[in-house]
Amino acid sequence: MSGMIYNIYMRAEIISIGTELLLGHIINTNTAYLSQKMAEAGIDVYRHTAVGDNPERLVSCIREALSRSDMVVTTGGLGPTVDDITLHSIARVLDSPLIFKKALKNYILGYFKKRKIKTFPEETLRQTYIPKGAVWFKNEHGTAPGILVEKNKKILIALPGPPREMRPLIKNAILPCLKRKGLVGNYIIKTRTLKVAGLVEVEVNKIVKDLLSMGPHTTLGIYVRLGEVDLRITTKAKNRTSANKKISEVERKIRKRLGNFIYGADNETLESIVGKKLRSSRQTLATCESCTGGLIGNRITNVSGSSDYFKLGVVAYSNSSKIKLLGLSPKTIKKHGAVSKETALFTAGAIRKIAKTDIGLSVTGIAGPSGGTKRKPVGLVYIALINNKVKMVKECHFQGTREDIKSITATTALNLLRTLF
Amino acid sequence: MSGMIYNIYMRAEIISIGTELLLGHIINTNTAYLSQKMAEAGIDVYRHTAVGDNPERLVSCIREALSRSDMVVTTGGLGPTVDDITLHSIARVLDSPLIFKKALKNYILGYFKKRKIKTFPEETLRQTYIPKGAVWFKNEHGTAPGILVEKNKKILIALPGPPREMRPLIKNAILPCLKRKGLVGNYIIKTRTLKVAGLVEVEVNKIVKDLLSMGPHTTLGIYVRLGEVDLRITTKAKNRTSANKKISEVERKIRKRLGNFIYGADNETLESIVGKKLRSSRQTLATCESCTGGLIGNRITNVSGSSDYFKLGVVAYSNSSKIKLLGLSPKTIKKHGAVSKETALFTAGAIRKIAKTDIGLSVTGIAGPSGGTKRKPVGLVYIALINNKVKMVKECHFQGTREDIKSITATTALNLLRTLF
Repeated sequence: MSGMIYNIYMRAEIISIGTELLLGHIINTNTAYLSQKMAEAGIDVYRHTAVGDNPERLVSCIREALSRSDMVVTTGGLGPTVDDITLHSIARVLDSPLIFKKALKNYILGYFKKRKIKTFPEETLRQTYIPKGAVWFKNEHGTAPGILVEKNKKILIALPGPPREMRPLIKNAILPCLKRKGLVGNYIIKTRTLKVAGLVEVEVNKIVKDLLSMGPHTTLGIYVRLGEVDLRITTKAKNRTSANKKISEVERKIRKRLGNFIYGADNETLESIVGKKLRSSRQTLATCESCTGGLIGNRITNVSGSSDYFKLGVVAYSNSSKIKLLGLSPKTIKKHGAVSKETALFTAGAIRKIAKTDIGLSVTGIAGPSGGTKRKPVGLVYIALINNKVKMVKECHFQGTREDIKSITATTALNLLRTLF
Repeated sequence: MSGMIYNIYMRAEIISIGTELLLGHIINTNTAYLSQKMAEAGIDVYRHTAVGDNPERLVSCIREALSRSDMVVTTGGLGPTVDDITLHSIARVLDSPLIFKKALKNYILGYFKKRKIKTFPEETLRQTYIPKGAVWFKNEHGTAPGILVEKNKKILIALPGPPREMRPLIKNAILPCLKRKGLVGNYIIKTRTLKVAGLVEVEVNKIVKDLLSMGPHTTLGIYVRLGEVDLRITTKAKNRTSANKKISEVERKIRKRLGNFIYGADNETLESIVGKKLRSSRQTLATCESCTGGLIGNRITNVSGSSDYFKLGVVAYSNSSKIKLLGLSPKTIKKHGAVSKETALFTAGAIRKIAKTDIGLSVTGIAGPSGGTKRKPVGLVYIALINNKVKMVKECHFQGTREDIKSITATTALNLLRTLF
């Protein structure tokens, strides 16, 4: 099969399967992930389709896609229940029977054994049958394997629907397999995302506006997230060297203009950058959170190894805990309020002392929707930072839902922490 | 036109337009929103498609959709630049010219005036042309109008891509217009989601298996989230009363079988349910987190008003903070380890005492990817709960990424807390 000649530009389509998508019950995040990974591998994604759990419709949908494109990737419908129709539909399209795979059964048995599940659920047996001629790939997070079939110069790939099962399969198993076979990789699409914090979209837009229409092979896009802006450079090139060259050119221009507002790139997060800076400067951190309720600690500890620098977090959600645990004086609360510069500064210092860390970070604010007053409205947040040199507090006015305000507060606090270094 | 006879069950498709979707640069949230709103209005969404900014492909995509369905809704491609090809493509499909609309130009001029923009950008003139026979709807958040055309018993609707522009247009303008014309609203689709925690998918599947194929007008679907399972009942009925009756019937059956494993329904979350129970029983809570790093506190405080019952959270991310702040004896750590039943129980009791709350909750574990040993592997987690009656600790073995393990731990802890009541 590896001797087949495929188009230089492999054209692909993605089909998402599940009635829940058509009812709007879940947001389809799989197609964006798949599209990105496929683009990086030089596969031209040409169309996305979502259909329900209906065999007739799925069969005609796969047929149409195969008539237009070289490769079709499906997600969903690989579970053990009768609702799961993908492999049956693929078998019908290919006019091949489903055949039993002993090795697959053994793998699934092992999967259950590892998880100390003793009874092999009978329905799971359905998952041991795959279309004749197909190869399967281990799913580390579930029993449904990834499937790849080649027939008549077309490639059909079936992946499970849950993102945590689908993602490692395409990234670590399917794409490397296609590359080994020489089926993809004739050109590459490379992207580089520069991550901006501390500026809003219109400000960023103004600064890079002239770069937004470079086209056709290199493009720049602006994408907004809560409290952050992403600048994404995309280029299509014959090889990595030429792609890297194009991207570096644009990146240099952008960095010159935005400087330290760019905190990182690609998969870097504010918490991973802050973590790196803490680690390399051998400093430690303690946090005192109020309105964010633990979100800052949660984000900091999403970074593996964060226990090396993150020592203690306190979520002081009541005045009494601020008084008792942190030694905040009831007078300060009475005079300035729990949401005040004074409380933020005091608690940042207190947590630093208690945890004996280099840096103390504290946030206090009103996340809403209730609890606001005219003088202290919902969205008012104070962020304080103390180390042996700096003692600062920032007053912020955020907008949005309770979760938005928590999230923007955490982002702003982490960005402020970053600028300490 | 209102005299036309449409199918009682209006069948629709959604086409999302934009190369950024095919490159995976943005997650398509529009289709889920549109699908929900359309389902609620009794429109059967049958397929989603996403295509790039390519006129030929878009034209054939719209043609195909119109050949299968009664209604086609597009999003995107209505902006002022030459990349925006939707209306030209629709005009080609309908074989109608684009014609200038003075009222639309006046509206756009007014839009700019209101925003104190004095120069009318020339490109915006493109947005004043719409297909002949189409009606247009005001976009409160941008210049691109919503468009509706009826031709040959088919309905074509074009909406702008940005969610904040698209959402009010479909909800407040297009759907009410279709209802007024009697084109939709002949039946409704209603859903009810029962939320399950404490059982895995295969277990839930086994219990409700026979209900999974009730069809055709009432269906049950199983959807897995980290540490939770959703059971979604969907019914199609002539009116609200009949829909509610059908849903109640199925819900009763499921509740009888799953009992307390169902923690809530629809928009309820574990943290909102736990919050309600704490509030109604007038009990207070304090948490001590280790591996979850603040995630439990974050989730609890996502509920507005949670400061009434959530008093204190400590993220004891170092042994010294466990010793100093919570009084954990270094001997306990040495003998049993920081990740142990003993540490979990002690810290649950300690945080309860410090915060003077009714309940103390503590988690300690290894979120990975590093830090595991053979005896204490990544994913080992202890969850302890103490109140004046109960003192319990649960040993768990979770799998997945660091963030997965943190998330499943938080969910399991909140579910354990729920079962206290």
